Amino acid sequence: MKTFATTTNGIERGSAAAGLTANTYERIVSGMARASLKDQLIESGVETLHRGGYHHVGVRAIVADAKVPQGSFTNHFASKEAFGLEVVSRYFESILEVVDRTLLDESRPPLDRLRAYFGTISGLLAERDWRHGCLIGNMSLEATEQSEAIRERLDAIFAEWTAPFAVAIRAGQASGDIRADLDPDETAEFLLAAWQGAMLRMKVERAPRALEAFTRLVFTTVLVAPAES
Amino acid sequence: MKTFATTTNGIERGSAAAGLTANTYERIVSGMARASLKDQLIESGVETLHRGGYHHVGVRAIVADAKVPQGSFTNHFASKEAFGLEVVSRYFESILEVVDRTLLDESRPPLDRLRAYFGTISGLLAERDWRHGCLIGNMSLEATEQSEAIRERLDAIFAEWTAPFAVAIRAGQASGDIRADLDPDETAEFLLAAWQGAMLRMKVERAPRALEAFTRLVFTTVLVAPAES
Repeated sequence: MKTFATTTNGIERGSAAAGLTANTYERIVSGMARASLKDQLIESGVETLHRGGYHHVGVRAIVADAKVPQGSFTNHFASKEAFGLEVVSRYFESILEVVDRTLLDESRPPLDRLRAYFGTISGLLAERDWRHGCLIGNMSLEATEQSEAIRERLDAIFAEWTAPFAVAIRAGQASGDIRADLDPDETAEFLLAAWQGAMLRMKVERAPRALEAFTRLVFTTVLVAPAES
Repeated sequence: MKTFATTTNGIERGSAAAGLTANTYERIVSGMARASLKDQLIESGVETLHRGGYHHVGVRAIVADAKVPQGSFTNHFASKEAFGLEVVSRYFESILEVVDRTLLDESRPPLDRLRAYFGTISGLLAERDWRHGCLIGNMSLEATEQSEAIRERLDAIFAEWTAPFAVAIRAGQASGDIRADLDPDETAEFLLAAWQGAMLRMKVERAPRALEAFTRLVFTTVLVAPAES
């Protein structure tokens, strides 16, 4: 069923090929419609929770933003918590796409990979006029005390998110571009946390100054030993 | 009126000395009682908002936690936003006490002042089993999009908070303990933001690992040039 849900064309080709009865076809299409409404809710929910916060936003606002019938929320999500978990996962998928194109892009020198990651995210933050920050950071401070399931998911996400930073740092140490005395895993953890803090400060200021300070300090002190004077 | 509100003894001495009528005395005492209920609400509100978050917690819960009559909230605060602003200010006062004892303590060497600040805060975070983080960080991510007044207050707080870090960094540069090539203001901003990020990560993990990574990296790479190999 999952594979049918990807495109309308996929369904049409599938039903034609299988010679389905009208009844079966209806069941599949309505299944697809449900999956698509669910998708619409999650996609839209990333935006809604990002703008409004997890607790502040009610199911009514989520449904209104997604432009879906009221009942479709309860059809697809047992609770707002279940919805929050799916939204966080979807959001993290979009981050992993950036990770793939930057931190894990072996065609670039390692320091460039790190610069590209922070630069790409900065560009996305600029598009929101430095107002939005990171949904995972927001949820980390807002929802962890309210929902153990969300806290555990976020903890797992941070672990998964840290690994590609460590990969880039190890590559930089191997090539001699990043100082050898750093523990790559600990440094990865530090960078990701410090970047979350920079986004937090940015959000309060609505200006990129903290992101710029982060970038300048990280690339001149943390990763690279200073030129001898 | 303000000075009367500090202690019961102050009121008694004041009223006795001035030979006040019962009526005046009543007005003063009831004024004091109001100030004290307000104080109680703010003190308790620091704890309540810290645990529950700004939006999640309603006035009913705030009043229940403070153990004051329901009506006293509306007597003292025009809105939950007004209450939030006072809670944030009270919380920041307690941070400034730590700042005074650490970053601004000229009897310590500059690097020790910085270590003492992060160490003292870590101790407070440990008392809450690494669950609570920083109320100002929480409000930064939760409330800035909801309340322009809170965002502006937080922005002013961050500016005030950054200055004593810069003082300690300048002192360390003057004494030769902190590398001279750093911009003290930018480094101060970076440290405070990175520390917020470390507390965010800590809160998700409920463990001090991110705080430890922060401390190790900051004191071996950001502030101090590595020993020549």
